[in-house]
Amino acid sequence: MSAEPRIELSLKATLQFACEAPCPPKLRSAVHHAVFPGGARVRPRLCLAVAVACGDDEPELANGAAAAIELLHCASLVHDDLPCFDDADERRGKPSVHKAFGAPLAVLAGDALIVAAFQTLGLCMPISTQRAANILSTVAAAVGGPCGIVAGQAWECEEEILISEYHRAKTGSLFSAATIAGAESAGHESEPWRRLGDLLGEAYQIADDICDVVADPKERGKPGKRDLALGRPNAATELGVQGAVRRLRSLLADASESVPACPGSDALRVHIARSALPYLPKELLVAA
Amino acid sequence: MSAEPRIELSLKATLQFACEAPCPPKLRSAVHHAVFPGGARVRPRLCLAVAVACGDDEPELANGAAAAIELLHCASLVHDDLPCFDDADERRGKPSVHKAFGAPLAVLAGDALIVAAFQTLGLCMPISTQRAANILSTVAAAVGGPCGIVAGQAWECEEEILISEYHRAKTGSLFSAATIAGAESAGHESEPWRRLGDLLGEAYQIADDICDVVADPKERGKPGKRDLALGRPNAATELGVQGAVRRLRSLLADASESVPACPGSDALRVHIARSALPYLPKELLVAA
Repeated sequence: MSAEPRIELSLKATLQFACEAPCPPKLRSAVHHAVFPGGARVRPRLCLAVAVACGDDEPELANGAAAAIELLHCASLVHDDLPCFDDADERRGKPSVHKAFGAPLAVLAGDALIVAAFQTLGLCMPISTQRAANILSTVAAAVGGPCGIVAGQAWECEEEILISEYHRAKTGSLFSAATIAGAESAGHESEPWRRLGDLLGEAYQIADDICDVVADPKERGKPGKRDLALGRPNAATELGVQGAVRRLRSLLADASESVPACPGSDALRVHIARSALPYLPKELLVAA
Repeated sequence: MSAEPRIELSLKATLQFACEAPCPPKLRSAVHHAVFPGGARVRPRLCLAVAVACGDDEPELANGAAAAIELLHCASLVHDDLPCFDDADERRGKPSVHKAFGAPLAVLAGDALIVAAFQTLGLCMPISTQRAANILSTVAAAVGGPCGIVAGQAWECEEEILISEYHRAKTGSLFSAATIAGAESAGHESEPWRRLGDLLGEAYQIADDICDVVADPKERGKPGKRDLALGRPNAATELGVQGAVRRLRSLLADASESVPACPGSDALRVHIARSALPYLPKELLVAA
């Protein structure tokens, strides 16, 4: 089965379990709104691409890891969009969860998604307790303190931001969790896969920075020029748009070179070469 | 070691891990504020009391389960106190997390505590993967959808509340997780322990309802008469204060009878007999 149906079916199964009767109906709707229809599912696709490259001998475990990572990403979007943070009205071309359901249900939907992610990993324990336990530790570290996405978001509340920690925690951590968990699902050693996740995390951060500056908010499904409005660092502002595109290409080249020896390294390099760039406006790719 | 130091040391160890450098300093402070000094630690004490009654042959696993349950309870308090829910200024006799640190850090501290709970359970996997995996499933089900505390809180957002589901999810679920996880930590069968948790959850809910109506807010460390102000159901309003005290005593008697056969059942019954009642104003106990 290709990546897309694996991810969508796994997410659907998790939410069916987490939102079955007697779940309060509005919570169920808010959680579904946060997860479906998805964005590009970049992180779970990366997780599965690495799992396949490593042999994918426990595909259900890889599916569970991919779903858990996507659920945690969705949770972070729901909470980041709240009025007390970015106060974003739109996400993925539709109202953000708090716009559609109110702030209380947005807080709770985010909480429910965090729990559902770990519940999914709990359900994977019988497949291989050792591998699933490794994935649980990897994923938890990528989300919580001191270096996970929650910590990344919390840097925005400090007077002095450690920029490198901020980016690594807010974006990079879940990308490296995706590559590491993918490898762990197939029983491969995890550490050699961290660098690939770090590099791709930085590449996607730069692509997002570029889009924030130049892309059409309608096509993107979320408001533009948010970094400028919120006083956040942005690579396209710092390096210029073309400088940022060059940096992105360089990161993808480094990512491709960083792939550890594994049965499916060639196909994984194809996946990497196609990463991040498709999110940029086409005219930028021709010019760069 | 008695329950109190086991719980406090286990919580401290978890937060040290979750908040070590380079954790953003305000997130670290907000998380600590939410957990220390604690309240009565009712749920982790119950978890350890059951573990001890069942032989407590893996005390570190019981400590991890108790800490995870308390962290999730603290997370729920932080999020419930937010301006978009109860808008509570005080908790445990000091400012609520959002009052002290602002709403963004309160949302993030709650998220970090949820993740830290599962991280704690992840760290317990090497002790006994099977038992730790059981505890993970138990705890996740008690917190997330469809029947966990998040679902319980979400019932408050519905026009029509299923009262029994509301109470069972919002309060009962973490009490039954405490008894079940305590038994699971010692390798005992879990289901026979659910009823004890359900009964004690209801008993503490009634004690809380009574205190909300009659107790001195200063002594209690949080504002009184909140249920009336927020239009929430309250047993002391429905049954009268003395009727509610009688119901509480009857629940404790049922709880004592429900204890499954185990090596330390006598000591556990002593623990149960001392439950919930000490939170009531003394004059009520004399009169009842």
